Amino acid sequence: MRTIEPDEIDLLATGAWILGAGGGGNPYLAGLNLRTLYETGTRVSLIDPMELADDDAVALVSSMGAPLVGRERLSDPRFAVKPLVAMQKYLGREVRAVMSGEIGGTNALQPLMVAAVTGLPVVDADAMGRAFPETQMSSFAIDELPMLPLVLADIRDTELIIPRAESPKWMERIARKALTEMGSVAATCKAPRTGREVKDHAILHSTTKAIRIGRTVHEARRRHDDPIAALVEAEKGAVLFRGKVHDVSRRATEGFLRGTVRIEGLDGDRGASLELAFQNEFAAAWRDGEVQVTTPEIICVMDSVSGEAIGTEMIRYGQRVSVVVLPVPDFFLTQRALAATGPRAFGYDFDFRTVLAGRGQ
Amino acid sequence: MRTIEPDEIDLLATGAWILGAGGGGNPYLAGLNLRTLYETGTRVSLIDPMELADDDAVALVSSMGAPLVGRERLSDPRFAVKPLVAMQKYLGREVRAVMSGEIGGTNALQPLMVAAVTGLPVVDADAMGRAFPETQMSSFAIDELPMLPLVLADIRDTELIIPRAESPKWMERIARKALTEMGSVAATCKAPRTGREVKDHAILHSTTKAIRIGRTVHEARRRHDDPIAALVEAEKGAVLFRGKVHDVSRRATEGFLRGTVRIEGLDGDRGASLELAFQNEFAAAWRDGEVQVTTPEIICVMDSVSGEAIGTEMIRYGQRVSVVVLPVPDFFLTQRALAATGPRAFGYDFDFRTVLAGRGQ
Repeated sequence: MRTIEPDEIDLLATGAWILGAGGGGNPYLAGLNLRTLYETGTRVSLIDPMELADDDAVALVSSMGAPLVGRERLSDPRFAVKPLVAMQKYLGREVRAVMSGEIGGTNALQPLMVAAVTGLPVVDADAMGRAFPETQMSSFAIDELPMLPLVLADIRDTELIIPRAESPKWMERIARKALTEMGSVAATCKAPRTGREVKDHAILHSTTKAIRIGRTVHEARRRHDDPIAALVEAEKGAVLFRGKVHDVSRRATEGFLRGTVRIEGLDGDRGASLELAFQNEFAAAWRDGEVQVTTPEIICVMDSVSGEAIGTEMIRYGQRVSVVVLPVPDFFLTQRALAATGPRAFGYDFDFRTVLAGRGQ
Repeated sequence: MRTIEPDEIDLLATGAWILGAGGGGNPYLAGLNLRTLYETGTRVSLIDPMELADDDAVALVSSMGAPLVGRERLSDPRFAVKPLVAMQKYLGREVRAVMSGEIGGTNALQPLMVAAVTGLPVVDADAMGRAFPETQMSSFAIDELPMLPLVLADIRDTELIIPRAESPKWMERIARKALTEMGSVAATCKAPRTGREVKDHAILHSTTKAIRIGRTVHEARRRHDDPIAALVEAEKGAVLFRGKVHDVSRRATEGFLRGTVRIEGLDGDRGASLELAFQNEFAAAWRDGEVQVTTPEIICVMDSVSGEAIGTEMIRYGQRVSVVVLPVPDFFLTQRALAATGPRAFGYDFDFRTVLAGRGQ
């Protein structure tokens, strides 16, 4: 167990936003909130999952809803902690620690806010290693751990508990309807995992990884090096394409942000074009009509100069961007995990593909 | 405490349907279900509210949703009992008895189904003395008793608990959205009331009243007397109008069934016409354009020959009907209760009016 230092908040926000693969919501505002708490002396502890006892209870806390709403409504630590309090009351027991279900995007920081208020440590792990649009794409769901109860709380004084559901899909359906009525954003707490389950089924040390990614980018900027080159070298990724955004088609449907982006090549890619499709996160990339990379590999669009990640809700005409591919944790390359997170799970009629050497088919 | 006899099931169904004021859902199918249980020897006990200890917990059980769905999906006692089981688990205590929140319509019989499965007695009381479209129109809500937690269960294996809500209106909003996703019908269990609260704030002896009304109608039919004349005499009501249904406008909006009915006079009312407006239940009646009777007084449309009540979802052109007014319990004629249940609460720009002597303004 160690203390997360003040300078690591920004690093975590930067790294988590890159791991968001275009989705997950920009962690910038949650980072501001945490910095305010840190300025008053609050500190959050990060606990290695291997330090957990097998029967410790670990609460998964997150924010659920439309990322665009999160840009207008500042994350609030007191709001983030409400479903945990309700969960502990419902289960009649306390949890040992909190963790993120999704290290990509703003949910990387949600457990830190809860930790800042409660004094609980944050487990250095998550269940996605990136951002995914749906709960059934988490390692816990893929490994068929029970997902209930689920607790939701809104910014008013309304709480909701789903103790039973016919299936994870039904849990998602009911929760999403209630959530919409709550104003399309809610703080949630999911079925606590045991320490044993975290050790066996979580994506381990992903908070540390996000901080490391953030540090690589920030340090390259400070040295006036190319942050994107530094990132792909340090994380064994690749630059897929460089160019200018020419066309964006985007629509919010069924609680998701879906669309496509067309990028015209610059520099070494001049004359070529890249098309990206997204459902909250970038799901596939075609170069001149041919599939190059697909989900679950992490596809990230970054500002070519600053190395700042650009979300699917913010990408727009004229931006000079680099499309980067980072390796998703190996767990997601198993057949079982690909069935839940590969391109076919998003409705595409082709199999997983990547440009990173020595991975997949 | 006494046993509800087999012949009383039909009487209760008939009486409750009349007290439904056109809404609340036809209790016929729930009655069939109960008769089946009675045929296998099951019996349900009715307990006088005055027999409850002050600290007894009494669970309010009901079916929530669109009445039309209830006509296709037969009420099921095992389904009705699920939210009670979840509520007892959530609260960590057992309840002493069950009761209906709404004696008008099918919810009059819901606690009997739960009682048949659990062996708990049914309290001879409700919180409306009729049917109303919304929870905040109950005597418990008007007297500002806390309405939470609320538990919903669907016919699958999905359950939902709302332990806190900003207001009863927010509870209703969230529950109704979740309910829609569940298929527009759910079994519910509301915040248990203490025995003291039931004695002080419920509409007492309304199960007995509904059985009595059913008996009046059934006995008049057996004697080949006019059941409508017998009803209004026994219950101090009045026949407002007799005629033929000429025009029905009906639409399902925002989870309610809204519309109007125009009836052309027959017999003594020949040449006149009566217009009725409804929101699930009949809310107001105009004779030749002039308001005669309004909610919360019980306006009931009955088949002129059989004395069978006709619901707002079933009324249609050509039916020969009598429009009957029955007195709502006095509780609802206080200024405070009229603010929640009078015509202005339904959006009309006039005050409570009635044709029953010695009541209201």
